[in-house]
Amino acid sequence: MFSCWLSRLCGGLSTPTGRVTHLIQGSLSRRLMLSSQRRIPELNSFVARTNTCGELRSSHLGQEVTLCGWIQYRRQNIFLVLRDFHGLVQVVIPQDESAASVKKILCEAPMESVVQVSGTVISRPPGQENPKMPTGEIEIKVKSAQLLNTCKKLPFEIKDFVKKTEALRLQYRYLDLRSFQMQYNLRLRSRMVMKMREYLCNLHGFVDIETPTLFKRTPGGAKEFVIPSREPGKFYCLPQSPQQFKQLLMVGGLDRYFQVARCYRDEGSRPDRQPEFTQIVDISDVFRNTKVGFLQDALSKPQGTVKAICISEGAKYLKRKDIESLRKLAADHFNQEVLPVFPKANRNWNSPVAKSIMEEQRSELIRLMEIQEDGVVLLTAGEHRKACSVLGKLRLECADLLEARGLVLRDPALFSFLWVVDFPLFLPKEENPGELESAHHPFTAPHPSDIHLLHTEPKQVRSQHYDLVLNGNEIGGGSIRIHDAELQRYILATLLKEDVKLLSHLLQALDFGAPPHGGIALGLDRLICLVTGAPSIRDVIAFPKSFRGHDLMSNAPDSLPPEELKPYHIQVSWPADSEAEKSSLNQPYHPES
Amino acid sequence: MFSCWLSRLCGGLSTPTGRVTHLIQGSLSRRLMLSSQRRIPELNSFVARTNTCGELRSSHLGQEVTLCGWIQYRRQNIFLVLRDFHGLVQVVIPQDESAASVKKILCEAPMESVVQVSGTVISRPPGQENPKMPTGEIEIKVKSAQLLNTCKKLPFEIKDFVKKTEALRLQYRYLDLRSFQMQYNLRLRSRMVMKMREYLCNLHGFVDIETPTLFKRTPGGAKEFVIPSREPGKFYCLPQSPQQFKQLLMVGGLDRYFQVARCYRDEGSRPDRQPEFTQIVDISDVFRNTKVGFLQDALSKPQGTVKAICISEGAKYLKRKDIESLRKLAADHFNQEVLPVFPKANRNWNSPVAKSIMEEQRSELIRLMEIQEDGVVLLTAGEHRKACSVLGKLRLECADLLEARGLVLRDPALFSFLWVVDFPLFLPKEENPGELESAHHPFTAPHPSDIHLLHTEPKQVRSQHYDLVLNGNEIGGGSIRIHDAELQRYILATLLKEDVKLLSHLLQALDFGAPPHGGIALGLDRLICLVTGAPSIRDVIAFPKSFRGHDLMSNAPDSLPPEELKPYHIQVSWPADSEAEKSSLNQPYHPES
Repeated sequence: MFSCWLSRLCGGLSTPTGRVTHLIQGSLSRRLMLSSQRRIPELNSFVARTNTCGELRSSHLGQEVTLCGWIQYRRQNIFLVLRDFHGLVQVVIPQDESAASVKKILCEAPMESVVQVSGTVISRPPGQENPKMPTGEIEIKVKSAQLLNTCKKLPFEIKDFVKKTEALRLQYRYLDLRSFQMQYNLRLRSRMVMKMREYLCNLHGFVDIETPTLFKRTPGGAKEFVIPSREPGKFYCLPQSPQQFKQLLMVGGLDRYFQVARCYRDEGSRPDRQPEFTQIVDISDVFRNTKVGFLQDALSKPQGTVKAICISEGAKYLKRKDIESLRKLAADHFNQEVLPVFPKANRNWNSPVAKSIMEEQRSELIRLMEIQEDGVVLLTAGEHRKACSVLGKLRLECADLLEARGLVLRDPALFSFLWVVDFPLFLPKEENPGELESAHHPFTAPHPSDIHLLHTEPKQVRSQHYDLVLNGNEIGGGSIRIHDAELQRYILATLLKEDVKLLSHLLQALDFGAPPHGGIALGLDRLICLVTGAPSIRDVIAFPKSFRGHDLMSNAPDSLPPEELKPYHIQVSWPADSEAEKSSLNQPYHPES
Repeated sequence: MFSCWLSRLCGGLSTPTGRVTHLIQGSLSRRLMLSSQRRIPELNSFVARTNTCGELRSSHLGQEVTLCGWIQYRRQNIFLVLRDFHGLVQVVIPQDESAASVKKILCEAPMESVVQVSGTVISRPPGQENPKMPTGEIEIKVKSAQLLNTCKKLPFEIKDFVKKTEALRLQYRYLDLRSFQMQYNLRLRSRMVMKMREYLCNLHGFVDIETPTLFKRTPGGAKEFVIPSREPGKFYCLPQSPQQFKQLLMVGGLDRYFQVARCYRDEGSRPDRQPEFTQIVDISDVFRNTKVGFLQDALSKPQGTVKAICISEGAKYLKRKDIESLRKLAADHFNQEVLPVFPKANRNWNSPVAKSIMEEQRSELIRLMEIQEDGVVLLTAGEHRKACSVLGKLRLECADLLEARGLVLRDPALFSFLWVVDFPLFLPKEENPGELESAHHPFTAPHPSDIHLLHTEPKQVRSQHYDLVLNGNEIGGGSIRIHDAELQRYILATLLKEDVKLLSHLLQALDFGAPPHGGIALGLDRLICLVTGAPSIRDVIAFPKSFRGHDLMSNAPDSLPPEELKPYHIQVSWPADSEAEKSSLNQPYHPES
């Protein structure tokens, strides 16, 4: 099958050493176009099945078929339901004496064993059709059967998988993958990525280019994994993103490049630091004269602000323990205090802080935020960015809580996109606010209207960065890049005080006629999550790592004997307090809980 | 553009949280089908150009256009040739006084600078059309021009690039990528991979799944890069191939899986160990009584053989120094002695060995190999596999030499495919011939007809491995895999004496109803090489590593300060003899020559 197909493919190409220097890309691409939706017959001699389980219909009645699949279900030793990647089909186990051996195989094989059956497609008796099952009008009258592989007792049933702990699901990932939901998610992902490719390659002439994953450390690349080489003391890095290569491809004239790329970020075990996007109301003025300590504190600082969101119908649907868990989330993950305020004064939450909000402030708040009677205000204070982050997160949490109680807040069929633009190019450094750091990365171009401010008021310069938000979740971002070497040098060396030597290859490339260029990167995992409604990106990745970066199935990362490290000229520096851990390395593995 | 497209894509999908448990894959895939060949208008506000350089024809006459591109060529300050990814177009520099500033920009910009021009598409004067150029009937009468980026003096001209040393080309890869040949190779590669995806996904329902690149060391994975984690002494590995994941996906019911995968092989600096496929003639019997030392030696050993190939017209076209360089190649890369034999006795090569071949042996050789008068026989002796490898390589080298002298040996438009089957499942271990090792890998299934020999004569068992060869080059290989856990355990533990604990996750997966399965992997780099006629795989990869695994553009791998290794709990073990090297680490970088 492959060679026949390759032959057809190659035959359609221009002769390779003819070189055809005058052939233009446009005409070549037309010659390469394969007339696409035609079905090509299966020519694979290794395949025993004549059909897939899911494809049989009334139009197949009377056909002799051979099917292979897993035993999904068995009823009273009379019926089997057989499953493959395409769907389910009902199989009738023969009951007559002459077929005793076939019956024995089909009745004794454990669930999830793999069997091959041959037989005839017949209609189900009247009244026994199953309209909910695509193959529900037919069943298979089996003549012969073969047990291809038996299945040991499963740790739990496939259909119960999603109810199990994530650690267990990851440990037995190959079983979890058999579930309807994982099959659906991964196959949908594959088709979505294919549609993206067709759009970019076939409709817009983009070129798909793979860039290296063994590369050099980038400045500030503290989250890049290092890979020792066979040269003493020399290391590769796994790039966090192919952004440098993107730019070099543009310099190289590979206009309209795209790639479905892996990005390696060694996040360690830090919590999700991704701030969520949100709309907020600034209510600092209401509290200018507050006596509440943490509000006072916040407002006394230059970047300090008091922000709030209103949860409509919150007073009706949120319980006290919900509010407490929201406050705990804010405290644990954002180190932020959050205060609930109820429009009705008779709702008293025993919180000393709540009492300190005077009646006057309360009514001003209600007016400003247009709070309905059963609304709840969640209020926080602090540095602008942090206050926004925590409220954005709480807003999503509240929506989840209210929806779990039956409210319809978000239309799951609706995809609302939003572009976020006009980001600042620089931010004050967290550890030293007198210095600047890039808001995104140092290659982002300044907004053309603000270029004159670069030398005088760099903090006021907006960037040409843009983010794409889908239903409140950031799904992508990108920017127009700096193509002028002088400007890039000025920003790196003068404004950001970076060591430009580490980026000399990029600066040199810009000097050799880099065209103006820009791009965007979509977070595929998150996008597929939103489209499938999966609760976690781990549900749209075939073999995800656990929260702590472990592969719970194979137990990676794992220890290596010192002699395997020798070719790479490295040795382990055991921390002083890890001697116990070191000596336990050879003990059996316990997955994290 | 992106959000509009995403919106369209998402709108066409089923509602994500509807979950639709009865929706079958087949109907979903039809709903996802995008009507494909329709052109979608460009809505990108960042793009200044109205057209690409390569697309303009007589049908565009009179149109006002804006083009962006690199200055490819300038003639007498009257014409410019502008280049973009789509092709070339001629631009007429205005000569009248009123357009002096436009003329200045276009005449003073160095070659390979990036300019934007606006003007009218006009026909070339009669007789000045260039039929070899797709845009050769028209030119652009420029009204305004803008210098988007200037280009410093290039280290050499773009069109001369392929003549430069590979090290220089790799160092300035972004310039090399602008050459016609690299653009052609990379764009063809992109289209070929797209065709493969369309064939697999759209015509055959394959599912594209990405498997992890941070994984656990596999037994015998001596060529896997190691990646230290933040847990002391624990390492990930970059997998040599996704073969374990392939199998786990099959166990997980993800039938019809494919992936365009990266394979990481840390080959160190070993020479190419890939034995080439070849046809040969065994002439051991002719030399049973030879007096030539190395032939005697070889034939005295159990696996010893004397093999030869005949180069037709070799005596006419190959020079003495060619023969010597072939012998040197055999000696350097294969440690094999090779002897040329000429049918005409009067051709005396002053070689003491050549003289030792007696007249009788010579004529027997001529008869056996059907040597024509101007043929040359290249003869070698030794272990079967090594003798075949060296002659296979020499055969291809000779073909290159003869073709360089004008002979037409291979039709470059012809793609000849060959399946190689019936490989042995095991080979004797090189270092200990009494023990067995897998000919390919331990997961390959035995040939069904030979299974009974596994317990008695394992060396006689053929495997279900298959290789695909295109024009004499191995472009892919694969196998039917073992799906039975007991058989896999027997082969691993009893026959191969491997530690099965390291593969416990795989053995466990086989126990839970693994279906019979197999696959194939194509070497994409080599395949694209053969199709484009590129001399090296480095000509079909955007950013290849050098022979020694270096990135000559960015200087990777590079040294890292010890504090950056600290989070990974490793330190460098400097070899005793490398103190000099260590101290020179901060010196300027010199690319390897």
